[in-house]
Amino acid sequence: MMQTRICTLFDIHYPIIQAGMVWCSGWRLAAAVSEYGGLGIIGAGSMYPDVLQQHIQKCKQATSKPFAVNVPLLYPDIDQLMACIVEEQVPIVFTSAGNPKIWTSRLKENGIKVAHVVSSAKFAQKSEAAGVDAVVAEGFEAGGHNGREETTTFCLIPLVKQAVSIPVIAAGGIGSGQSILAAMALGAEGVQIGSLFAASKESSAHEYFKNAVVEAKEGDTMLTMKQLTPVRLIKNDFFQRIHEAEQACCTKEELAEILGKRRAKKGIFEGDLVEGELEIGQISASIEEIKSVRQIMDGLINDFELARKVFAAK
Amino acid sequence: MMQTRICTLFDIHYPIIQAGMVWCSGWRLAAAVSEYGGLGIIGAGSMYPDVLQQHIQKCKQATSKPFAVNVPLLYPDIDQLMACIVEEQVPIVFTSAGNPKIWTSRLKENGIKVAHVVSSAKFAQKSEAAGVDAVVAEGFEAGGHNGREETTTFCLIPLVKQAVSIPVIAAGGIGSGQSILAAMALGAEGVQIGSLFAASKESSAHEYFKNAVVEAKEGDTMLTMKQLTPVRLIKNDFFQRIHEAEQACCTKEELAEILGKRRAKKGIFEGDLVEGELEIGQISASIEEIKSVRQIMDGLINDFELARKVFAAK
Repeated sequence: MMQTRICTLFDIHYPIIQAGMVWCSGWRLAAAVSEYGGLGIIGAGSMYPDVLQQHIQKCKQATSKPFAVNVPLLYPDIDQLMACIVEEQVPIVFTSAGNPKIWTSRLKENGIKVAHVVSSAKFAQKSEAAGVDAVVAEGFEAGGHNGREETTTFCLIPLVKQAVSIPVIAAGGIGSGQSILAAMALGAEGVQIGSLFAASKESSAHEYFKNAVVEAKEGDTMLTMKQLTPVRLIKNDFFQRIHEAEQACCTKEELAEILGKRRAKKGIFEGDLVEGELEIGQISASIEEIKSVRQIMDGLINDFELARKVFAAK
Repeated sequence: MMQTRICTLFDIHYPIIQAGMVWCSGWRLAAAVSEYGGLGIIGAGSMYPDVLQQHIQKCKQATSKPFAVNVPLLYPDIDQLMACIVEEQVPIVFTSAGNPKIWTSRLKENGIKVAHVVSSAKFAQKSEAAGVDAVVAEGFEAGGHNGREETTTFCLIPLVKQAVSIPVIAAGGIGSGQSILAAMALGAEGVQIGSLFAASKESSAHEYFKNAVVEAKEGDTMLTMKQLTPVRLIKNDFFQRIHEAEQACCTKEELAEILGKRRAKKGIFEGDLVEGELEIGQISASIEEIKSVRQIMDGLINDFELARKVFAAK
């Protein structure tokens, strides 16, 4: 498969990165992706510092290859999380949902590579100025929390590519080897894949959630809760309640009350398909089976090469 | 450039189609695109039947190459438009905004090729069943009227490709040779480009509108008026009024009253950037200059070939 600066930067074989996802990406998933030559990420967003430490230690036992931890910068126990990451000598950190200014230099002083997730070229430039090694540019179609500009992967990648000189990782809508080629044609040097790995055998999500991802068809996800933080999820009963409240012009506070706490855990980890927050990307419409990481990686790499040959031949 | 079934179907040199766009795509733009080897489309959405006839006749005088007419199927004078198209022996018709069942067979009986614009795989299948020769799959990022599913080009193309056996034309977010390659990697056999041609020298849009497209940055367009028909436009004063009314939970009727009539003409053709409806795609953020059709076509073809070589070489 194509070698890019992302392969060199993270010392990985394929420029395929598994997204850090709450309640999906523990050590088991991350280690499997790294073992098969991609970059696995432990999603710290749903972990207390001591839980994260256990996941990091187990991941190191399961693979000698590089892996990363994803840290949402608005996390309340961020100091403890970062201390744990430094102590455990995690080689790479993906930061998101916040300003990369404060933490990037501290992490880099400890020899840690840093990538930051953005949804606009403007924030990609700010991230580069903050010293990050790469940016993940995440389009409107991506699952979970997302930007307010609603810029899609097709439009976002060329804008970000033009705005920065560090390598760009495309996220949102990527679930096949063909789409990796498409992202690279638009200027990405790597891809970050969420939904496909969320529904993998090694994902720590509940079986019911994985089945819901497989069953999701086009139009079954929606970017919602724009008054709070926009999030893409499956349109279940919980979504309908939110949607009706929004249609009825509810306040931010009323929306926050309906949302309540621990909705994502309820939906993704506990498998409550009615009351839970089922965060997933639009590409779930193309996911037809729960596969192992090995099957996923083999499929991506083979399809990428097949697609590439089509363009080389004609 | 790559030859696909779209080239054969429409008898064109490059699988590049200029979108039919209200107040932008008269005979001058359509003829120029066809002359340079793409497929030019006269947008009948903003034309009375006698005006359309004049445009068709002028287009035939300006080029001997194939061109098309785009007809929104909900158009009130549809019978007269279609009669004119048949009488003038227009070789290709692109239909949109309606059910292709009624008109496809009548057009095909007259030797006319038919493509239909869809925003979902479901309607792509219905279009294929109705006998169309190709479908245009238009993503969420596209300008003007758009689907309710909000599926982006990245996610939509593979879904449509899988759903039908007729060729798929990708639309939405395409404004460079690199993005043509990306669309083809996802399964498209041709692309339909709107925004870039809307801001071309040959476009019949007002100079002020073209300048507004050039000046638009990321996040400057939004899909709005979802209670009526979703439309993507530049966030100007008119949009703000609509947006505030929606935030205040206005009714459909109130929204329709704010919208009024002839907003698109006012904005696009008359150049009223304050009160007009400035329909354009997200890719406008990447458009930096008003170019001639010749410059645009040369740029697209060169960049496509350069991008293709990158993948062939590595």
